[in-house]
Amino acid sequence: MPRFVYDFAEGDKDQKDLLGGKGANLAEMTNLGLPVPPGFIITTEACRAYLADGAEPDGMAAEVTEHLATLETAMGRRLGDPDDPLLVSVRSGAKFSMPGMMETVLNVGLNDASVHALAARAGDDRFAWDSYRRLVQMFGATVLGIESEHFSDAVEAAKKAKGTRNDLDLDAGDFERLVETFKGIVREHAGRDFPQDPREQLDLAVHAVFDSWNSPRANLYRRQERIPTDLGTAVSIVSMVFGNLGMDSGTGVAFTRDPASGARGVYGDYLQNAQGEDVVAGIRNTLPLTDLEQLDKTSYDQLMDIMTTLENHYRDLCDIEFTIERGKLWMLQTRVGKRTAAAAFTIATQLVDEGMIDLDEALRRVTGAQLANLMFPRFDRDAEKKLLTTGMNASPGAAVGAAVFDSATAVARARSGERVVLVRRETNPDDLDGMIAATGVLTSRGGRTSHAAVVARGMGKTAVCGADELEVDVAAKRFTTSDGVEVAEGEVISIDGTNGEVYLGEVPVVASPVVSWFEGTLHEGTGDDLVDAVARIMRHADETRRLNVRVNADTADDSGRARRFGAEGIGLCRTEHMFLGDRRELVERLVLAESRDEREKSLAALLPLQMEDFTAIFREMEGLPVTIRLLDPPLHEFLPDLTELSVEVALARERGEVDQEREDLLVAVRRLHEQNPMLGLRGVRLGIAVPGLFAMQVRAITRSAAELAAQGVSVHPEIMVPLVGTVQELQAVAAEIAEVVAEPESHVNGAPVPHQVGTMIELPRAAIVAAQIAESAEFFSFGTNDLTQTTWGFSRDDVESSFFSEYLEQGIFGVSPFESLDVEGVGHLVELGAREGRRTRPDLKLGICGEHGGDPDSVHFFHRVGLDYVSCSPFRVPVARLEAGRAAVSPD
Amino acid sequence: MPRFVYDFAEGDKDQKDLLGGKGANLAEMTNLGLPVPPGFIITTEACRAYLADGAEPDGMAAEVTEHLATLETAMGRRLGDPDDPLLVSVRSGAKFSMPGMMETVLNVGLNDASVHALAARAGDDRFAWDSYRRLVQMFGATVLGIESEHFSDAVEAAKKAKGTRNDLDLDAGDFERLVETFKGIVREHAGRDFPQDPREQLDLAVHAVFDSWNSPRANLYRRQERIPTDLGTAVSIVSMVFGNLGMDSGTGVAFTRDPASGARGVYGDYLQNAQGEDVVAGIRNTLPLTDLEQLDKTSYDQLMDIMTTLENHYRDLCDIEFTIERGKLWMLQTRVGKRTAAAAFTIATQLVDEGMIDLDEALRRVTGAQLANLMFPRFDRDAEKKLLTTGMNASPGAAVGAAVFDSATAVARARSGERVVLVRRETNPDDLDGMIAATGVLTSRGGRTSHAAVVARGMGKTAVCGADELEVDVAAKRFTTSDGVEVAEGEVISIDGTNGEVYLGEVPVVASPVVSWFEGTLHEGTGDDLVDAVARIMRHADETRRLNVRVNADTADDSGRARRFGAEGIGLCRTEHMFLGDRRELVERLVLAESRDEREKSLAALLPLQMEDFTAIFREMEGLPVTIRLLDPPLHEFLPDLTELSVEVALARERGEVDQEREDLLVAVRRLHEQNPMLGLRGVRLGIAVPGLFAMQVRAITRSAAELAAQGVSVHPEIMVPLVGTVQELQAVAAEIAEVVAEPESHVNGAPVPHQVGTMIELPRAAIVAAQIAESAEFFSFGTNDLTQTTWGFSRDDVESSFFSEYLEQGIFGVSPFESLDVEGVGHLVELGAREGRRTRPDLKLGICGEHGGDPDSVHFFHRVGLDYVSCSPFRVPVARLEAGRAAVSPD
Repeated sequence: MPRFVYDFAEGDKDQKDLLGGKGANLAEMTNLGLPVPPGFIITTEACRAYLADGAEPDGMAAEVTEHLATLETAMGRRLGDPDDPLLVSVRSGAKFSMPGMMETVLNVGLNDASVHALAARAGDDRFAWDSYRRLVQMFGATVLGIESEHFSDAVEAAKKAKGTRNDLDLDAGDFERLVETFKGIVREHAGRDFPQDPREQLDLAVHAVFDSWNSPRANLYRRQERIPTDLGTAVSIVSMVFGNLGMDSGTGVAFTRDPASGARGVYGDYLQNAQGEDVVAGIRNTLPLTDLEQLDKTSYDQLMDIMTTLENHYRDLCDIEFTIERGKLWMLQTRVGKRTAAAAFTIATQLVDEGMIDLDEALRRVTGAQLANLMFPRFDRDAEKKLLTTGMNASPGAAVGAAVFDSATAVARARSGERVVLVRRETNPDDLDGMIAATGVLTSRGGRTSHAAVVARGMGKTAVCGADELEVDVAAKRFTTSDGVEVAEGEVISIDGTNGEVYLGEVPVVASPVVSWFEGTLHEGTGDDLVDAVARIMRHADETRRLNVRVNADTADDSGRARRFGAEGIGLCRTEHMFLGDRRELVERLVLAESRDEREKSLAALLPLQMEDFTAIFREMEGLPVTIRLLDPPLHEFLPDLTELSVEVALARERGEVDQEREDLLVAVRRLHEQNPMLGLRGVRLGIAVPGLFAMQVRAITRSAAELAAQGVSVHPEIMVPLVGTVQELQAVAAEIAEVVAEPESHVNGAPVPHQVGTMIELPRAAIVAAQIAESAEFFSFGTNDLTQTTWGFSRDDVESSFFSEYLEQGIFGVSPFESLDVEGVGHLVELGAREGRRTRPDLKLGICGEHGGDPDSVHFFHRVGLDYVSCSPFRVPVARLEAGRAAVSPD
Repeated sequence: MPRFVYDFAEGDKDQKDLLGGKGANLAEMTNLGLPVPPGFIITTEACRAYLADGAEPDGMAAEVTEHLATLETAMGRRLGDPDDPLLVSVRSGAKFSMPGMMETVLNVGLNDASVHALAARAGDDRFAWDSYRRLVQMFGATVLGIESEHFSDAVEAAKKAKGTRNDLDLDAGDFERLVETFKGIVREHAGRDFPQDPREQLDLAVHAVFDSWNSPRANLYRRQERIPTDLGTAVSIVSMVFGNLGMDSGTGVAFTRDPASGARGVYGDYLQNAQGEDVVAGIRNTLPLTDLEQLDKTSYDQLMDIMTTLENHYRDLCDIEFTIERGKLWMLQTRVGKRTAAAAFTIATQLVDEGMIDLDEALRRVTGAQLANLMFPRFDRDAEKKLLTTGMNASPGAAVGAAVFDSATAVARARSGERVVLVRRETNPDDLDGMIAATGVLTSRGGRTSHAAVVARGMGKTAVCGADELEVDVAAKRFTTSDGVEVAEGEVISIDGTNGEVYLGEVPVVASPVVSWFEGTLHEGTGDDLVDAVARIMRHADETRRLNVRVNADTADDSGRARRFGAEGIGLCRTEHMFLGDRRELVERLVLAESRDEREKSLAALLPLQMEDFTAIFREMEGLPVTIRLLDPPLHEFLPDLTELSVEVALARERGEVDQEREDLLVAVRRLHEQNPMLGLRGVRLGIAVPGLFAMQVRAITRSAAELAAQGVSVHPEIMVPLVGTVQELQAVAAEIAEVVAEPESHVNGAPVPHQVGTMIELPRAAIVAAQIAESAEFFSFGTNDLTQTTWGFSRDDVESSFFSEYLEQGIFGVSPFESLDVEGVGHLVELGAREGRRTRPDLKLGICGEHGGDPDSVHFFHRVGLDYVSCSPFRVPVARLEAGRAAVSPD
């Protein structure tokens, strides 16, 4: 029989799972001897049982009765005692903080009888009736689900009748009348009377808190914050203390040090004669906390002592809520305080300097997400802005430029030195040139894993996606907002990839000092505290981590940038982008070749171009490994779209303007068309089906490497075969590679240029038969994007537009498995592949390339399963370094 | 250090892995004391090492030397002795018989010197020179790779010079001159002399046999017969005996009983004064073996004794090769004899009656493939036929009908009572009505796993696919052969799905008595031996098997047929076919519905139609379980094709004939279009994304079941949710199902109609997290088609047309994983899913539905991993029953 109720004195801060964050910290403070109003906690387990069964678990009611009795004894008052009532607050509190997402009910225990006793005890009728009307109002809205406007309208009416706009002008009689009015509202809208039985009030309030775990806004918040959906909330039942019993009472919030800079000092606000909700409501102006020293030195000194105690105890910045009831200080809440990304770094290093924590702990206290946040340029907060719309924050950053609606215009304008933002309904691989040329990308369709978003994040380019209020008219070269504002080509817009906002005109941008430091244009120890803190923690992460961090880079530019960001090699150099642009025509000829001779001519023409590509990259990554993936996507991706071409040809025929070349092209496109190209002729299948294609690429790799090696450049090519499902495929390609390697042009000093041959593990089957595959592979790189697609059976291209939002909405996914690795499913295969591969080849090098390589949670998983490196987009390299370090200092 | 050479006396018949079939059986006969010419065997292991390294393994040469010496001692002759040479044959022999696929060299040991000694010993110059020229000819062609035409042309020239057309007219001098000519041919075409060193002859011949393992024709044969590609062949070195030493010599082949009927008796051929190759060449007419009794009673009687010995020893029909050298009988080969499918059944039961084997053994000796073979109608072998072309034998059977080129015509003509064959370039789901109406399907594109092939096999309908010499012109309603023969709509053609042949005109068809027996129109014990044998073995299979056999059936017709074929329930009732045809319009409205109201109207209209479907099937399957899969394919499959509609709309616009309805439809089609529909919005995702769709289907199931149950009909619906990847999906649908089940219309006698809820395991992730999924599923059905697609990452739709043939050609696949389950990859997931599922729900019912359910090898696997049932197309049900029985009596 589990226990469902704990007294504050029975818990501690490490029981957040069971008691929730708020409850655990109240327990901790109680045990530290701090002045916490007595109370008890109903566990998250009770909540889970309640939510599953729709009723309190057996035994919970009896436990509540028992703890309530203990509390009544401690306080010397009974709940609902008409002569001297105990009042309690009923507060939510989950394992993870979800501020404002769930419910709280105060003043539980008041009723038509006890309100008089409260008035007598407080010597304040107005206070008692105000407390009572607050209870009815909160109870009505929270527990009984009545629209809160009904209550606030009644308050407004009362004030109007009185001719005032200030609550403070309402007197005891006004509040007594309001209580009556409120009780009428309850009767009318809930179809029942406000309960006079205090225990019924309590039970219903507890249920309402339980239920609020599943409110839509709570669900949405959890999904955004990646908080599991099945934790449930605890409920704290706390004796009421009152900050609104006169000018010697009040309530406040405080931080134990400056949450923005980490500087020690007194940071907080205080409000006299008020309860916490008044501070939150922001109706009256608060005083700086320092003023409390004048108002109530005893309480102030006690509070300062408590803050020091808490900081030393938690060894971190804490935030607190407190109430002073007629000169007596009560602590209502504490927790490790939220802080800005910058403060996280500076506070962590400050605490190290103060000797409170060591560098490992400092590393644990910052996150990759915070670092990423610090790396983006920002729009100047204080600048004036005209908001056009808000889309999804798909790739962070701040971009300003002239709106353009097609790739060619983007490239042309960018060449002439203009900054442009590419605006599309959605993007596809043909827009790549335009995306490269643009400072940012704005789309009206697709979400965070759409093509635009993924590619933009890969490039570290700002993107706002799925701004679905925009009508994008590509043909007319303009977009229109829902307010009817039209933006034509050439008009300047500003897009904020961090919050998804789109502005008209140019908003001034502030650069990131952290990036300047990575780039080497700003140095440590030159006065920027943030840079100093980041540098110190990054250094520790690098010293600590076991995982290497490589970059996914296809160009010399990206490679160079990534190297400055700390990449220790290229983990994935895709070659498909090298087949686009100017070379499209050559590739088209290759695809359409009808004879061996034609095909070989196209390949021969591509060889020197591929050699240029690889030479540039090898130079940039001198001394570091460069993993080059042989061509992966279906060839027809390099041809025109079937539907578009069919329409074009049909119209040409209709107009009597038949173009034989286009007709022939259509025949070829139709022949190569696949129902499911993702599951078709691609990767190693392409290499086997198109003789000479892989050989040409391998030749380009080994020849350019051999030429550089002859010049004394240290090159480490790793040839990676994509989409292998059986070792026979790899053997076939390995034999072809061996032939190319045997050619004299692949040699340096009479021997083949050093290289490795490995494969991607990106199909479930490859993970399953990894032991066999490892016999023919010197390294594995887990392609977790494709592996996610096949393990789940959905493609990244299609899911965003169809059921994914519904799945996130319904909580079937907590987070997209394309964003953060699905450890249970896909992770099982990664673990299996790693283990099996090392069974037949113990020194097998294991890496992962894919979006997950830069995802914090995923990096920790890759560390745990023993990979050698993660590889991610250039911009994520510092994030991956930091998280790899954190993984190394985190408990398993 | 492995041993590479075994003397005949050292082996036995169970060592086929190591010694090959021929070698193992020669060893067995030697040990039975039968007259086998002495010899030894080089192992398959030596072959594998040779093929891997390109050279004999260390030690093999010394072992050969040693065994050769033993042989020479036994025979009292030395290889290459110019005075009395030992001659040997060098024969291939793999584990599995591959008749005619690999090489043999006879008379090794002859050279310019020893030919004279052989002549003296035989007292026959002609024989000696003939033997020598045979050696040079075989060695030249087989070992040195010279086109055999060069040799046969020389023989023809010699005969022409002599003025004869018969080899027998050539004399010793002619053969001596031919040897010189042949040696010249060798010099010219091989660039070397014919080797005079007998050991060199021997070694080169052995290498040639090793190499012949990898000849293209051997590879092709292995793929067709599903023989693993890495076994290698053994080589038998056998002392030569000669059947061509005069009229008291000869050679023959025999069966120990009639291979067509199984009747005991003497069945064989004999050729006097000849060697084995002469019999095979068919140049001279053979005598019936019975004639040997007159010619050489001693040898005949000895042969009869040996045949009895062999039958009693092998307990099966054997075939043998023998030679009589001057009155002395030598056994050259024996093996369990190949037989027709019909004979396999009749012989097996005959041997039971003779007490030689028991019924378990009889069951092991027939195969599902043989049974399937017996179930197809056949074209009359003796009828006159005009062959048009040969395609792939995609679905066996014999179909005759008027050629039609579209579904509508097929349906119309079939309705008027005409038999039609549907001819298409390839088929798609829209052709389904036409396929149902037709007696057979002929396509010019796609292979054995194309849509046409898979669907036709599913229906038990004859299909020839990929007849790529045909030009099919659907618009003109005709096809043209490569010879220019045109066949227009209405002309009758006959297609043979068993061998892929297509004939002009009507070829007479003979029905299968086995099917008549299954159908109940022909009875056991009424004079048809085959039917009696099949009935007896099927009964034993049914008594023995542990696996249940269900059917994949979507209609009452199929259900009834399958029931007669022995189906014990429906394992997969697809509902997508019920959304086509007349109901297409309703479905289109559902897909295009823009409001909840519109959607619900469409669903309400579909409900009674779905109820009719299910009612008919439940009635047909009374008393048996019926597993109904909720709608699986992407909704856009029910809409027009994007490209076609785009062209239509563009042309209409061009012509100024804009049709708003088609324009709106295009918008919807574009919206629903997916890059990879197989990986898109389908299965359970559809159920979650389209509210009410699954509920409507479940309602149709439970209501029709409840109505029938109220009438006393025994119904056992099992509701199956497709494409589940995570238990949350199943929970969401299960909740919806529970709501429908709670409706009074789903009740009978006041309680919900009995039913089960389960899921398909058809995604790798589902197998991985099966333990969780089983908590919400009463049964699993492994969808091995989809599971194969995602495990390998290729779709059945696309693979056929692209790289699959290349993969089969290169031996990367032995057999398509869509045909026979990929045990290593997909099988791993099936096993994992079964084990994990039963971990949390020990009584979980496990089945498999998918093409593999009727594949013999796969059925054995499903038996081994402990599934409860397999489900397959109606026509495969008897095959699955038989194989399930065989699995139960086979060693693991």
